[in-house]
Amino acid sequence: MSISEATDTNNVTIADIAAAAERIRPYAHRTPVFSSHGINELVGAKVCFKAENMQKVGAFKFRGACNAVFSLSDEEVARGVITHSSGNHAAALALAARLRGCEAVIVMPDNAPTVKKDAVASYGARIEFCDSNEEAREAAVRALQAQRPRELVHPFNDVRIVAGQGTAARELLEDYPDLQAVFAPVGGGGLLSGTAIAAKAHGATVYGAEPAAADDAARSLRAGKIIPVDHPRTIADGLRTSLGPVTFAIIRRDVNDIVTVSERAIMRAMRLLWERLKLVVEPSGAVPLAVLLEHGVPSGVERVGVILSGGNVDLGRLPWANIPP
Amino acid sequence: MSISEATDTNNVTIADIAAAAERIRPYAHRTPVFSSHGINELVGAKVCFKAENMQKVGAFKFRGACNAVFSLSDEEVARGVITHSSGNHAAALALAARLRGCEAVIVMPDNAPTVKKDAVASYGARIEFCDSNEEAREAAVRALQAQRPRELVHPFNDVRIVAGQGTAARELLEDYPDLQAVFAPVGGGGLLSGTAIAAKAHGATVYGAEPAAADDAARSLRAGKIIPVDHPRTIADGLRTSLGPVTFAIIRRDVNDIVTVSERAIMRAMRLLWERLKLVVEPSGAVPLAVLLEHGVPSGVERVGVILSGGNVDLGRLPWANIPP
Repeated sequence: MSISEATDTNNVTIADIAAAAERIRPYAHRTPVFSSHGINELVGAKVCFKAENMQKVGAFKFRGACNAVFSLSDEEVARGVITHSSGNHAAALALAARLRGCEAVIVMPDNAPTVKKDAVASYGARIEFCDSNEEAREAAVRALQAQRPRELVHPFNDVRIVAGQGTAARELLEDYPDLQAVFAPVGGGGLLSGTAIAAKAHGATVYGAEPAAADDAARSLRAGKIIPVDHPRTIADGLRTSLGPVTFAIIRRDVNDIVTVSERAIMRAMRLLWERLKLVVEPSGAVPLAVLLEHGVPSGVERVGVILSGGNVDLGRLPWANIPP
Repeated sequence: MSISEATDTNNVTIADIAAAAERIRPYAHRTPVFSSHGINELVGAKVCFKAENMQKVGAFKFRGACNAVFSLSDEEVARGVITHSSGNHAAALALAARLRGCEAVIVMPDNAPTVKKDAVASYGARIEFCDSNEEAREAAVRALQAQRPRELVHPFNDVRIVAGQGTAARELLEDYPDLQAVFAPVGGGGLLSGTAIAAKAHGATVYGAEPAAADDAARSLRAGKIIPVDHPRTIADGLRTSLGPVTFAIIRRDVNDIVTVSERAIMRAMRLLWERLKLVVEPSGAVPLAVLLEHGVPSGVERVGVILSGGNVDLGRLPWANIPP
């Protein structure tokens, strides 16, 4: 099935992920996988961490953005791309567009961290500022699209994005085919739904990991419909968004469960990753390990994969200043 | 030449480093090598970072300690080993001794950080506390040796240690044979002298990197004799020691130069490594990059290797709280 057919059906298959892997290969890193004897002992299973913090722009988001931009026709490229994001997707789309020679417009909240604005600008994208809420963002995109339509690349509710994000788990399972379960963080669900399709095709089960303080995906899964989250307060800033129809449908079908954890558990897991793996991982990326430490591995599972989603963190403001190790 | 002959002559050859590599292979990690397009641009050369922060115990020190302990005769093993160290060598010797099934006694200053004491104790070594100065440490070792002699494994002034530390640069140059120069931090000189022997054998030049606030090695090299350092104040806590006769002789012979940098440059380089490579690196490990950023690469050099010596840092007290990025 081609990507355009997938777009029509809102479905993504393992063939789409394989096609995405080919498409992004010249641009994205094949990230390394790390493990720690000490963490294995704490978890009670072998844990393989896919280091997407070492991906271009410091997060898995580059995979999806790159797949989307390199799926465009020349005509679409000539029109340019647009998105709204205050986080890693903004930088990812800006870089992918630059690599394709395509104009990118990024709608960002005016209170976005300077370092994120600078990153997007450094990739040559045009930034349009808006107020810091979902309605203002979408209104800003609509206004810009009315002036001059560009190809919208949504941060997660887009089959091209889902297929791109699934390439991380595909690589992990190529490198470690004996993994029995894969854990990924869930915010908008792009990473989790792509991971689920890749893992299921390799015979592994899939779990989402979510902050209890932003447990909309866990509640949506139980309710059988999308329950949006309202101003969640979690340090896992990448996981504050709610699911979209595309990602929710895949998650319902292919994800075994979504497990939630406390803020304190996230901070401790993050610190453990820094101390034992010597990797700079952002709070969102530590949520799966927090789940493994708090709830243990699923019954019968001895080998687990984890997607360390990103490593973009304000080093001047680390969350554990007052948390004992 | 065997290690015991090397001990007699106080010399270390590339054959000793090759033998050390074989000896430690079952126990030490072959650490990965990373690079960053952004850092290459800032430096103006390709820089390959050997991630010894990912070595066992979080530092290259495990290489030397492991080589020393696995060089011992069964009789020496039965007597046990002893050293004095407040830092990474203490944990490294404790772990190496445990792997060989050998008793280890570690003399540590009573004000050593709790986390370091806990690490040493967790490897099953016996800790003897002393006052926090060089004389007290050596007196404590002498008193213990008078009670019951053990094999002393000095943190750096020991040919077995130098040969072990040289295996890091050997691996780096096996992986990247076209590197023209290698930079390593210098404290007691174990890493720098081992690196120099390995690099010279591969046709690369070698530079030491040292905090200006603890520039005893640079001054010693110029003076032609060891000039000890007196209570240096640098955040690079691994580089506060002075050279020993074994390391100084090798450094005089094989090191091209030792270059010094400010504390501020060390902090900025450390932050850059965390942000761009997503690696947790301790201040000492950032000193070579600080040199490259402040002084540039040597004339004609386009490909540089750097030993990222370690990653053991108190995450609750990062040095850049008040330093802009």
